Amino acid sequence: MTTLSPTPRSTLTRKKNRAATDRQALYDVLDAALICHLGLVLNGSPVVLPTGYGRDGDTLYFHGSTGSGNLRAAAEGIDVCVTVTLLDGIVYARSLNNHSMNYRCAVVHGTAKLTTSAAEKMHGLKVVTEHLAPGSWEHARAVNDKELAAVAVLSLDLGEASVKIRAGEPGEEPEDEHSDHIWAGVVPVQTTFGAPVPASYVPIGSPLPAHVSRAPGR
Amino acid sequence: MTTLSPTPRSTLTRKKNRAATDRQALYDVLDAALICHLGLVLNGSPVVLPTGYGRDGDTLYFHGSTGSGNLRAAAEGIDVCVTVTLLDGIVYARSLNNHSMNYRCAVVHGTAKLTTSAAEKMHGLKVVTEHLAPGSWEHARAVNDKELAAVAVLSLDLGEASVKIRAGEPGEEPEDEHSDHIWAGVVPVQTTFGAPVPASYVPIGSPLPAHVSRAPGR
Repeated sequence: MTTLSPTPRSTLTRKKNRAATDRQALYDVLDAALICHLGLVLNGSPVVLPTGYGRDGDTLYFHGSTGSGNLRAAAEGIDVCVTVTLLDGIVYARSLNNHSMNYRCAVVHGTAKLTTSAAEKMHGLKVVTEHLAPGSWEHARAVNDKELAAVAVLSLDLGEASVKIRAGEPGEEPEDEHSDHIWAGVVPVQTTFGAPVPASYVPIGSPLPAHVSRAPGR
Repeated sequence: MTTLSPTPRSTLTRKKNRAATDRQALYDVLDAALICHLGLVLNGSPVVLPTGYGRDGDTLYFHGSTGSGNLRAAAEGIDVCVTVTLLDGIVYARSLNNHSMNYRCAVVHGTAKLTTSAAEKMHGLKVVTEHLAPGSWEHARAVNDKELAAVAVLSLDLGEASVKIRAGEPGEEPEDEHSDHIWAGVVPVQTTFGAPVPASYVPIGSPLPAHVSRAPGR
């Protein structure tokens, strides 16, 4: 199994037992989530914004308007941190101190690059689209030249990443072992999809395309 | 309605129509989500980590181990950015370029403060606990002195915040108006809770406490 080749800033210093060290664990988290949180430094201050993304091999792609100051900053070769989190459960322990969350989290550090060729931009857009709305790339109207010019597509190498996972039962202290009057366990948390809602201008009776009814997780 | 008193870094520069400007919108987003993403700058690089939180009036509270380097850095009075995102839907437009997401997002900028008095620490822990696991503060074993000493509790003022919301139908271009062969609409996305799973050491037949069966969203 290929390891994640951690650097100091991607090596967990605490709760090391929660660190996953193979690349497949990284891919699994990135492929399972829908959005990421992109962090960058603007005028010395951190900025964290939610955004769509997609993965192709060891590359993450993002996109945004060329008018976005944050995207422009990220494209200028500054460090970014991309964090993807899946919340899996609320962990009720017998002690308040051991209350916790079950989760899977990937943190990627690196320098985002602006894609320049039209072919690479188009590829990045396809990866991002197919992550969020698989099947739309074939179904919907293609990106035209004017639209392509107005979008910035960034890529980020997955070389420096860490994965942290908590799963399973609560941890408990020995002193709480016999406190059977206190409930302990996990309330699972899931992301679920509702029934697709057609836009008001879609003719009544239009069939729901298979790629929409087969949206991930449903 | 009290406004959010935006500063330059909390004023939206794009898609201004998605900006909510009253404090209730901020509270609603912060109260509806379960986790936030905390961004800070360490050694010049951005770091974004998921964490629990809770709100009391115009103060957010976080906690973590006193051994956490990130928490220690945040406690030293450096700028942080806290982002809370609720993904509400995947927006399928007739053009790929108008594909989007429905979401509610709050971004808070400020300087986190380390709470020092035992009373304020305990209050912050209660706020964080009751956000994630309402009812646990009364039900579970209280935090003892040793546990309290090992936890760092941070507070962040909500004075500098922005809220961005996208909801409703896809946007479309005039050229796609008659493309009735392309489906358009929204696939709703929700966070849902599964049936509580008791820990293996909970005696069979133990009743599920009301505060767990009434977990938020269920």
